[in-house]
Amino acid sequence: MGLQNVNTPAGGVSSTLAINQVVDEIRRSGRRVFHMGFGESPFPVHPRLADALARNTSQKSYLPVAGLPALRVEVADHYAGLTGLDSGNFDVLVGPGSKALLFALQLAIPGDVLLPVPSWVSYAPQCRLINQNLVPVEMQLATTGLSIEASDLRATIRRARSKGLAPTKLLLNYPNNPTGLTVTSESLEAIAAVCRAESITLIADEIYGRLAYDHVYRTAARHLPESTIITTGLSKHLSLGGWRLGVTLIPKARRGVFDEMCRIASELWSSVASPIQYAAVEAYAGHADIEEFVKMSTDVHASINRYVAARLRALGANCHTPQGGFYTWPDFTDLLAGECGTSDELSQRLLQASNVAALAGSAFGESPQSLKLRIAGCDYDGASALKLWPSLGDDEQCFADAAAPNIVAALDAIAEFVGQT
Amino acid sequence: MGLQNVNTPAGGVSSTLAINQVVDEIRRSGRRVFHMGFGESPFPVHPRLADALARNTSQKSYLPVAGLPALRVEVADHYAGLTGLDSGNFDVLVGPGSKALLFALQLAIPGDVLLPVPSWVSYAPQCRLINQNLVPVEMQLATTGLSIEASDLRATIRRARSKGLAPTKLLLNYPNNPTGLTVTSESLEAIAAVCRAESITLIADEIYGRLAYDHVYRTAARHLPESTIITTGLSKHLSLGGWRLGVTLIPKARRGVFDEMCRIASELWSSVASPIQYAAVEAYAGHADIEEFVKMSTDVHASINRYVAARLRALGANCHTPQGGFYTWPDFTDLLAGECGTSDELSQRLLQASNVAALAGSAFGESPQSLKLRIAGCDYDGASALKLWPSLGDDEQCFADAAAPNIVAALDAIAEFVGQT
Repeated sequence: MGLQNVNTPAGGVSSTLAINQVVDEIRRSGRRVFHMGFGESPFPVHPRLADALARNTSQKSYLPVAGLPALRVEVADHYAGLTGLDSGNFDVLVGPGSKALLFALQLAIPGDVLLPVPSWVSYAPQCRLINQNLVPVEMQLATTGLSIEASDLRATIRRARSKGLAPTKLLLNYPNNPTGLTVTSESLEAIAAVCRAESITLIADEIYGRLAYDHVYRTAARHLPESTIITTGLSKHLSLGGWRLGVTLIPKARRGVFDEMCRIASELWSSVASPIQYAAVEAYAGHADIEEFVKMSTDVHASINRYVAARLRALGANCHTPQGGFYTWPDFTDLLAGECGTSDELSQRLLQASNVAALAGSAFGESPQSLKLRIAGCDYDGASALKLWPSLGDDEQCFADAAAPNIVAALDAIAEFVGQT
Repeated sequence: MGLQNVNTPAGGVSSTLAINQVVDEIRRSGRRVFHMGFGESPFPVHPRLADALARNTSQKSYLPVAGLPALRVEVADHYAGLTGLDSGNFDVLVGPGSKALLFALQLAIPGDVLLPVPSWVSYAPQCRLINQNLVPVEMQLATTGLSIEASDLRATIRRARSKGLAPTKLLLNYPNNPTGLTVTSESLEAIAAVCRAESITLIADEIYGRLAYDHVYRTAARHLPESTIITTGLSKHLSLGGWRLGVTLIPKARRGVFDEMCRIASELWSSVASPIQYAAVEAYAGHADIEEFVKMSTDVHASINRYVAARLRALGANCHTPQGGFYTWPDFTDLLAGECGTSDELSQRLLQASNVAALAGSAFGESPQSLKLRIAGCDYDGASALKLWPSLGDDEQCFADAAAPNIVAALDAIAEFVGQT
């Protein structure tokens, strides 16, 4: 077919971004593709934020390294409200996306990285770029959510230390990419206790935090306020990935990390685009219309992705019902082990035979032979979906048929693929 | 006084950004400061670009890692026109400021770094963050411009190699920060020849390239097209530092570096803010009004900074007439060696006694005992200056009095300081 491999494309670009470019290329060639590969929330820019950006086109000066003071205050207040912690608990630093902040945090906190498996595609390459070692951590997935056993975590840390590694930080993401699950409170508490006892900094990637389908904001910071560093941003709950604005909240107790982050930020990116920062103040100001937009967006994600999971289960895959974000994580091993050798092969064949783009589990650190895929449930028109939601939102099938016909068709195509294979 | 040291502030933030924050703090306290510390071009956003940004507030999707295709095409064409090279000679990659691109280039091209002295404050810290060694290169400053002796450069490379270092790249910036000088064609040719012979990649930081006072665009790429990587952006010639848009032009002959840059960009920042990229297309499209704006801005910079240099010479400092950008680089050693031990002490005392903020030469790699300062000539209202230029532009003193009274007052204050000291 002459197509790039979507999971390990030429040039080695991050898989999630690479699949986007591959799909664009196929579409330009005139072929239809169901794009379940890239997680980009499909809702439009909220008009209040578009207006705020339009009002700030003359902002041209460099802003302070840590961010526009008014934005930092709004962010601190916003997350104080969500986490239940005092806004004075944190120092806020704004960056050009939470990805850049996560990289800078790896630089700012020397040592090796405890990395749950599966996990987001960029954590490991970021660490490799700066020669930090990765220590895999086993994660349990269940209908109640994801968890890490305290005893496992402790043993992993000690085993790593006995081998001469120096794990200093744990990267935890919830609601989780790629599994679609969030973390249980019990597990957060247990993880926090181990981190405290073992002097591990918990880097809590809460970029999907406002997209928990039960509208509960979970944070490790409640259990480990002195050593939890939160990263988040505008990209997921406000569908503003292309605005590239991330924030990190660093406990005042870790002032040294904040100072080091400011130093690194000043040498790596100086500051975030000024018009975007001025506009972002409105995103965190608690406007009722924006909060309602976030809630309805989350409800739409919930409906679509629960529908996807139900369909995947109906055709025989093992798949938990997602709890937040916009991914499902089906396992086709029982169904297709005789047919496909690796998840990479599965994703390639699915794209070739059925025009469905999805990422192989191996891109997230899973063993290649485990036939898992990450299915992103984003290939629909967000503006139409928001209009249809009030009248059709109470019936998942009905809503999917009306609002997300590509997703319905993709699942039909997967069903046919599984039947034929 | 309780002030932070502007050259090595708390937290170790990049000196140029730190001084900005220190001056803001002093000004908030009600004290007047002449801000000669931070180089930020003071002209307003060109209305065509502000309009373009306002038209693109609904752009919210992630763009391709290398950048918006239409922007990459305009950038390639624009720099083909300026450099005289074919636009097909380059691959273009867009980043969140040229600082981020320079960091990514250090990662993308392993090995040690040949660094002329003096040089911009962030090159060395960027290399240190990723454990690359710095090899200082002696630079000659003259009224004709800056140069590096071919024999010196060759000897430096070979000496470094004999010590087990592996220099693979030379960072060259022209027009130059901090010296205000640009590079002579003869020297560019000689440097290119050494780089070619010694397999050194030339990273040409041409961020001030369009601000050469003689309106001649110089580039090493003409002499070393196969191994010159240009970095530049919107910040200097369009006064858009706060928009954070940088570009790098990588020779097709170095396709591996481009691929590696895409991979690194995909793991570090994904893409640049979409509304900014759409607006930036207009910046590179060759509109006559924008080209005229760049030309007039450059003429204003030339007038102001030549005035600054003349005043500094008149009071006894050694100071070349600048040739581009917005800096002068006076040496007070002959004048003040008995009074001040280091350039750091000189800049501190100047701020305390005379309310003039300027960066010490030591921040740029000069020996501390050499009493050099980097004086940024930017503390004036750019919009007013552009209005006054057509009628007053033919008399430097007259124009400075009318358009840049703070700069005149700062020089009066420096004169008084030198007289008193």
